[in-house]
Amino acid sequence: MIDLAHCRTLDARDPLRAVRDRFARPAEDTVYLDGNSIGAMPADAASRVERVMLEGWRDARRRGWNRFDWLEKPWRMGEGLAHIVGAGKGDVLFCDNTTINLYKILGYAWQLDRTRPVIVTEAHNFPTDTYVAEGLARFAGGAAAVRRIDRPHELDAALSGDVGVLYLSYVDYRTSRRWNMAAVNELARARGVLTLWDCSHAAGAIPVDLEGTGADFAVGCGYKYLCGGPGAPAWLYVHPRHQDRAWPVIAGWMGHADVFAFAPTYEPLRGVRRHQTGTPGILANEAMSAAIDIWRDVRREDLAWKHRSLSEVLIALLEQECGKFGVRVTSPLDYDEQGGHVGFSHPGAGSVCEALLEHGVVSSFRKPDVIRFGISPVAISHEDVWVAVSRLRQVLETEIWREPRFAKVSV
Amino acid sequence: MIDLAHCRTLDARDPLRAVRDRFARPAEDTVYLDGNSIGAMPADAASRVERVMLEGWRDARRRGWNRFDWLEKPWRMGEGLAHIVGAGKGDVLFCDNTTINLYKILGYAWQLDRTRPVIVTEAHNFPTDTYVAEGLARFAGGAAAVRRIDRPHELDAALSGDVGVLYLSYVDYRTSRRWNMAAVNELARARGVLTLWDCSHAAGAIPVDLEGTGADFAVGCGYKYLCGGPGAPAWLYVHPRHQDRAWPVIAGWMGHADVFAFAPTYEPLRGVRRHQTGTPGILANEAMSAAIDIWRDVRREDLAWKHRSLSEVLIALLEQECGKFGVRVTSPLDYDEQGGHVGFSHPGAGSVCEALLEHGVVSSFRKPDVIRFGISPVAISHEDVWVAVSRLRQVLETEIWREPRFAKVSV
Repeated sequence: MIDLAHCRTLDARDPLRAVRDRFARPAEDTVYLDGNSIGAMPADAASRVERVMLEGWRDARRRGWNRFDWLEKPWRMGEGLAHIVGAGKGDVLFCDNTTINLYKILGYAWQLDRTRPVIVTEAHNFPTDTYVAEGLARFAGGAAAVRRIDRPHELDAALSGDVGVLYLSYVDYRTSRRWNMAAVNELARARGVLTLWDCSHAAGAIPVDLEGTGADFAVGCGYKYLCGGPGAPAWLYVHPRHQDRAWPVIAGWMGHADVFAFAPTYEPLRGVRRHQTGTPGILANEAMSAAIDIWRDVRREDLAWKHRSLSEVLIALLEQECGKFGVRVTSPLDYDEQGGHVGFSHPGAGSVCEALLEHGVVSSFRKPDVIRFGISPVAISHEDVWVAVSRLRQVLETEIWREPRFAKVSV
Repeated sequence: MIDLAHCRTLDARDPLRAVRDRFARPAEDTVYLDGNSIGAMPADAASRVERVMLEGWRDARRRGWNRFDWLEKPWRMGEGLAHIVGAGKGDVLFCDNTTINLYKILGYAWQLDRTRPVIVTEAHNFPTDTYVAEGLARFAGGAAAVRRIDRPHELDAALSGDVGVLYLSYVDYRTSRRWNMAAVNELARARGVLTLWDCSHAAGAIPVDLEGTGADFAVGCGYKYLCGGPGAPAWLYVHPRHQDRAWPVIAGWMGHADVFAFAPTYEPLRGVRRHQTGTPGILANEAMSAAIDIWRDVRREDLAWKHRSLSEVLIALLEQECGKFGVRVTSPLDYDEQGGHVGFSHPGAGSVCEALLEHGVVSSFRKPDVIRFGISPVAISHEDVWVAVSRLRQVLETEIWREPRFAKVSV
């Protein structure tokens, strides 16, 4: 039996307690469990962005490029995130958005061996991941193709000799199921296949170990658990063994070996920075940097402890408080298979999610009947989990979710 | 003989006088002639971005997608810019950065006829434009190639039967020379070649007439004369006759026919909006929208009158006040051949540009000996031009630019 006192005891020993206070308190009394959608805002993000606008844009104008660290931010932020995703400090870069980085890195990996023109992915990968692969294969033409597997056990058979890249989401955005990254990388390596992992629903929630598991490439968004804000830059990772093997697919001046030489022909920068394209997003990068400055102070093992602790408490409370009202946890019960969020089904999930909003709990709904509670270890407490489940219980017990005003479900 | 009184007379009849007051006054007494680098900041840009951060990010979180117009902004901004670049209202889209949009649209145009695999461009096109073409040809493989012309008169001979796309900057970033867009489009059309224009050094300074001249495609940045701020989204234009001919090169969920259906396979949106990739840059789009709300109120003919008037006054004053100190205008003297900025040479240009900064004039230097004064009709007055040239004269007359502290030249 888990009670509020138990949650408070866990919070008292939370090593990330102080980190939580570095995020802004919203105007309303609300528990935000949408870290899998848009993460919390660092307390100083708004003032930092305002300063860039007034001192950088209004006053400095073009001198801003010399006065501030605008051009360094993309890789400085990568350095700050590296330990959270298990990467070398120089191997991560922030730029562009997730879709574009997926395209750039999938294309980069794909072109490394054109005699293996097939990309393997999951039929139920996140839509933009799949679309990017379809579009790339169509544009590349020739024998380029996308092969989809329906279930994990089909992976082995799918990795035949014509496959160049295995392209997976580390965590499934619906089910929260997590691949065994080490085992998959090992299998792929044995078959001569490169791996590209979309870590959007993992990074900042659960520790990711890119280099330790031998991943070749990775991409992730900045706006979910990493708390970079709506429209934040995304990140990309290239293992050092691949960094200087080819030109980037989108060859831009910010990825040139000597950007301000204005040379007439392209020559890539060494390393991961060649994947920079055009002018970086100065405002978005400042907001993202506010979050990265927090991540620099987050120890990997503390993140791991807290996400696991929050997840286990949440799953136990969902059963204990709401099981009798038809709530069934759909995400993996074995923690080693779970990703960033906990998902549960309920016959009225869409309306329940809307009613929860009115009761001060922001979560997210996925068709047909799943509610997702995103577990953001830097921003929520065990008590938050207690409050959220209590409110869920209230919504279910009173059946208020059946009221007509909750019938219209937003996505 | 042009004097300050004459400049003030012109300002008194300036139809864009009121528009100028909608930009923020910088902290210092400075004349900004770097509209070709980072344009002026709209007066309400900082407060609008702050509101998005507090109400959208901090408080609304994922609900922001439903509460605000975040998903509509990319094409709403396109509608607001359309008349300035001579495009149909539904044919312009803001997204990503210039380099990425060049890649997307060059790739889109290139794939429309793979039997014409050659891209023609200028040897002295802006670096990122050239790099994008080189990178695209390398990635596409096969017969894809880039052919460069050195001088305009070589264009005719370069457009042979193997050419699919003619890829030019409307205005040269160094010389400010402007192509005759109508004549070039006509020549290209006669040869069965598609045209893609980079309008970065033109849009927002001089009127552009994409549809009227029969341009097929265009791209431009948002941060120069369009005043969207550092890292602003770029825009792209696709003539209606090409909009539904193919998939976009980067097929992302924001360009899907039904983004929130989470369909397993890609189907493009109709029209130009299929070129949207991933999550839009919410902060950057808000800042850009502050500028677009100004552009909605700018009449095309007023922009044309004022840019011409400012340019002619500037060129006359440079000769009148500074000719005797070695200043020579290098940009075209025939206004119909001039782009957004006026360029002039001086043997000590780099140091002069630095000394001008100390004297409250922000301009930009390009190797080896050219200073560029960017003419931003919405943000500067004829009196500003008078003040800037007076300060230039002072810098040259006193030879203060020879002092050692101006020897280090920033780019």
